[in-house]
Amino acid sequence: MTSGTLAGQRCLVLGAGGFIGFNLCRALAAAGARVHGFGRTPKFGEPPTTETWTNAEFGDHLALRRAVEGMEVVFHLLGGSIPGEAERDPVGDLRTNAVGSLELLSLCQSMGVHRLVFVSSGGTIYGPTAVSPISEDHPTNPISVYGIHKLLIEKHLGMHIHRDSMQAMVLRAANPYGPYQRPGRGQGLVVNLITRRLAGQPVEIWGDGSTVRDYLHVDDLVRAMLAAAVYEGPYRLMNVGSGIGRSINEVVAAVDQVLGLSGAEVRHLPGRAADVPSNVLDVSRIRTELGWSAQIGWLNGLRHTADWVLGKSGSGGPAVRPAP
Amino acid sequence: MTSGTLAGQRCLVLGAGGFIGFNLCRALAAAGARVHGFGRTPKFGEPPTTETWTNAEFGDHLALRRAVEGMEVVFHLLGGSIPGEAERDPVGDLRTNAVGSLELLSLCQSMGVHRLVFVSSGGTIYGPTAVSPISEDHPTNPISVYGIHKLLIEKHLGMHIHRDSMQAMVLRAANPYGPYQRPGRGQGLVVNLITRRLAGQPVEIWGDGSTVRDYLHVDDLVRAMLAAAVYEGPYRLMNVGSGIGRSINEVVAAVDQVLGLSGAEVRHLPGRAADVPSNVLDVSRIRTELGWSAQIGWLNGLRHTADWVLGKSGSGGPAVRPAP
Repeated sequence: MTSGTLAGQRCLVLGAGGFIGFNLCRALAAAGARVHGFGRTPKFGEPPTTETWTNAEFGDHLALRRAVEGMEVVFHLLGGSIPGEAERDPVGDLRTNAVGSLELLSLCQSMGVHRLVFVSSGGTIYGPTAVSPISEDHPTNPISVYGIHKLLIEKHLGMHIHRDSMQAMVLRAANPYGPYQRPGRGQGLVVNLITRRLAGQPVEIWGDGSTVRDYLHVDDLVRAMLAAAVYEGPYRLMNVGSGIGRSINEVVAAVDQVLGLSGAEVRHLPGRAADVPSNVLDVSRIRTELGWSAQIGWLNGLRHTADWVLGKSGSGGPAVRPAP
Repeated sequence: MTSGTLAGQRCLVLGAGGFIGFNLCRALAAAGARVHGFGRTPKFGEPPTTETWTNAEFGDHLALRRAVEGMEVVFHLLGGSIPGEAERDPVGDLRTNAVGSLELLSLCQSMGVHRLVFVSSGGTIYGPTAVSPISEDHPTNPISVYGIHKLLIEKHLGMHIHRDSMQAMVLRAANPYGPYQRPGRGQGLVVNLITRRLAGQPVEIWGDGSTVRDYLHVDDLVRAMLAAAVYEGPYRLMNVGSGIGRSINEVVAAVDQVLGLSGAEVRHLPGRAADVPSNVLDVSRIRTELGWSAQIGWLNGLRHTADWVLGKSGSGGPAVRPAP
């Protein structure tokens, strides 16, 4: 149910300097798209794979307008990439990220963008659930500011789809991990574990380690985004995840297995009020509609991420070396 | 399932100078509550029934903080009272009304308010539905900015209820009508029809007149709000409406019947993109939980409103007189 191709299409990536955005730009360039990046300049020690770049904040309306002009496909990854920041300052998050997204939607509508792909948060948007895995039709009662504001943007997008026939797709993504995710920013369990274990540092986790999440390799997520950009079917909203739940304790063990380490020193921090106990996504819809499913095995994905952290892939990852 | 009384309790009404707020203040005063009003000074030609008043805009954070201090019950009626304004300027509505509501929630939480009652929009929050009447469990896909931002506030409130055990109630109100609703502001079909028919002016309606809404007399709504403020049961969200759907054409005919007029000249304006074709609320929950149901009959309610418009009730309604 996908059609067409992105080759030669003018694609704008908002948040191109971030973890998902940087990976997405590489995939778009490989697919022959003409990619314009928007956001803060990436700090990965290697140039972005974009044709052109706007170094600007999301709140810079004029820069945003110029960037959207003439674009055929817009990938929206901006707006609250760090859940902890939204939590500390809900009003600030609303003022910058939500307002920026509303302005973006109006721009896309008025400037004739053919297709918008918005990456929402499958991990937070549903809130606590009694069922698992969680389908797209489940009620959305997020208990984090991050999740609520993703829902707000989804609803504005839904309104434009209903009223203006805007061509848009929402992907509710599980917890992505993989190369170009930076450690030490209060998110990204996998990269943080790998980095700390390699450096011989104790591992810090929130709660007792029983919290279950759905981990998705970023290459799989990016593949779903490319497919969503050319999808012609009836749905405007899809979960994208592995469909498999893993506890934090299981992730700690798997990281050690891949690194050939054992005996991790685990420090337990208090559980976070914004965390639901479990979140695993039902991915039947995206499998049927896009013919997509996660392809990268768990241990392979961890190994791939560890290689990047170790700089083995030549991709300029952080210069972390195993502790002696 | 209600308990206690509001007598002697310090109640803050945000939006006390508006249609619902002014009626609410009267009912609270009659119930023996100590009422503080917040908002623009009412323009009804009669003094508000409050003990004290803060004349301020919602965005005045300092004034809001002072008003919330020491309050036991807060009624939140502010934030986008005119759907058309939110529609014209979604970003502005988010910046003022949504931000103000988030700040209010934090204030109520940190300053120990016992109970918050928020009036949400049963008429817009569900969006288009295939079923009727609509229960509280129905998905919420609003197609108006007004409805989306009411949903945003509901979700933030839900987060506070979940995480901080905030005592709060959301009432999703149907279309209220009655005394103190001002005509000529793009909402309030009943008062606009009465005013124009009495003045011998043509009636203007959006669309072909088939749009169905659930009309609720403001006295009934206010009675539900007082009951919600002392409710101790498990629900945090209730529809409040008549449970009866009436088309615009039926409302036009009923108004003529009550006024003893006939042959209304109806001008049809284009339908509005933000309007759903039909909206009737399922009110079983509030009936069971609060023992509440709408008491004011339709024609009586219209007569009551017409009396106010004619100034017969001595309540200072607009000085409209029947055309000769």
